[in-house]
Amino acid sequence: MDNLYIIKIGGNIIDDKEKLSSFLKAFASIPHRKLLVHGGGKLATNLAEQMNIPQQMVDGRRITDAETLKVVTMVYAGYINKSIVAQLQAYDCNAIGLSGADANVLQAHKRQKGNIDFGYAGDIDSVDAFFLHQLLEQELTPVLCPITHDRKGQLLNTNADTIAQESGKALSRFYTVHLVYSFEKSGVLRNADDDDSVITEINAGSYHDLKEQKVVFAGMIPKLDNAFAALESGVKEVIIGKAEDILELVSGKAGTRIVG
Amino acid sequence: MDNLYIIKIGGNIIDDKEKLSSFLKAFASIPHRKLLVHGGGKLATNLAEQMNIPQQMVDGRRITDAETLKVVTMVYAGYINKSIVAQLQAYDCNAIGLSGADANVLQAHKRQKGNIDFGYAGDIDSVDAFFLHQLLEQELTPVLCPITHDRKGQLLNTNADTIAQESGKALSRFYTVHLVYSFEKSGVLRNADDDDSVITEINAGSYHDLKEQKVVFAGMIPKLDNAFAALESGVKEVIIGKAEDILELVSGKAGTRIVG
Repeated sequence: MDNLYIIKIGGNIIDDKEKLSSFLKAFASIPHRKLLVHGGGKLATNLAEQMNIPQQMVDGRRITDAETLKVVTMVYAGYINKSIVAQLQAYDCNAIGLSGADANVLQAHKRQKGNIDFGYAGDIDSVDAFFLHQLLEQELTPVLCPITHDRKGQLLNTNADTIAQESGKALSRFYTVHLVYSFEKSGVLRNADDDDSVITEINAGSYHDLKEQKVVFAGMIPKLDNAFAALESGVKEVIIGKAEDILELVSGKAGTRIVG
Repeated sequence: MDNLYIIKIGGNIIDDKEKLSSFLKAFASIPHRKLLVHGGGKLATNLAEQMNIPQQMVDGRRITDAETLKVVTMVYAGYINKSIVAQLQAYDCNAIGLSGADANVLQAHKRQKGNIDFGYAGDIDSVDAFFLHQLLEQELTPVLCPITHDRKGQLLNTNADTIAQESGKALSRFYTVHLVYSFEKSGVLRNADDDDSVITEINAGSYHDLKEQKVVFAGMIPKLDNAFAALESGVKEVIIGKAEDILELVSGKAGTRIVG
């Protein structure tokens, strides 16, 4: 099977015009089939402030009320998605921006109210991998924003990490999927204060040891648990590292590789 | 060749939630290949006001400065486009929302400064009719918003009527194209005050007479000139009428048909 690189970029790079632009230039030059998933960044928060829409955060997660959904739809599916697509086009990468509603590519349902009511937050039910595969075989590069829908007319706000993961699982029917999560650090670090202490590879056995030794803890644990879950669902490897190092992450010269 | 209906809806219907919803329900039921082009409505103006971005209008046309471009990208490509797509999906119409940047479907250039500097206004250079054709043959319904790009990384604001017309011309390579412009009135009226005085058909000869008789004047003349230009470039017929009558416009029971 051909290789497919699914790359997720987060808010920190989206908020920095120059970093974003140089990331997109590098991304465009990746000589493989590829798909980009982007998060939100501070733009939505800033716009909500300008519009006097109070933002409620619980445990670092945004509560998506109706007005906030409108804001994130404008910012994620509109401004950020189309700005990224237009820049990729300029770098000769034939990008196509999609929300989950477009061609019903990501169908979700509104999260049930638990202890916390997250509002219009969507949990993914299905990914139309066949349609994404058709686009990829036409040498198009899908750019997914974190807006999905329930196919009953309701748009929903969905975590971009989850979109990358679910797309990776679904697309492993057609490709050898490499899932790349970019974040602030160079990878999983042996010493949190030393960006040079990247652990180059983690497998199920060494993960167990790293947890025992408390090298891996807190916010890194759900990230890695999700990575191993993706591997169990068909993804070949998960790579974690800095967006600035995207070409090195893809070629195996930087970051942490999580393998089965 | 198969029939293709390209339908343009304007701001008046987009601003009215109930009218828009019943229009989309009817549109979804059109038993032909179809493509929707939507304009903007008052939402962009309202958002610009909330964000304290002064809006400059010249001859009823918005001047698109950098901040306004951001607003229209958020509203047109984000909120309006995705809300329409999600609703169509709920009505079992497999819609896919696109800006001109997506898959490079509408490439434009920034309008040269003449007497008036329109800012980031784009005039269309090319339509990727082959890509739209591929989507249509997959039973997808493209929904185009009035944002294009120059393939150098710049998004541009483009008139939705023009997008409908240029798409119609380009797609006439693959289909018998019927171009439907919906507006506030029931069609071209013999008596401007009487909505029942619709002229059912206009051809080049009768158009000449209607102009001589001053039945057709002012803002209607450029609309009809554009319609005849589309006919000369391969479009089969142009239909003008009310969005509320969309099914009757398609079946030939309402509106004005402009034919070669």
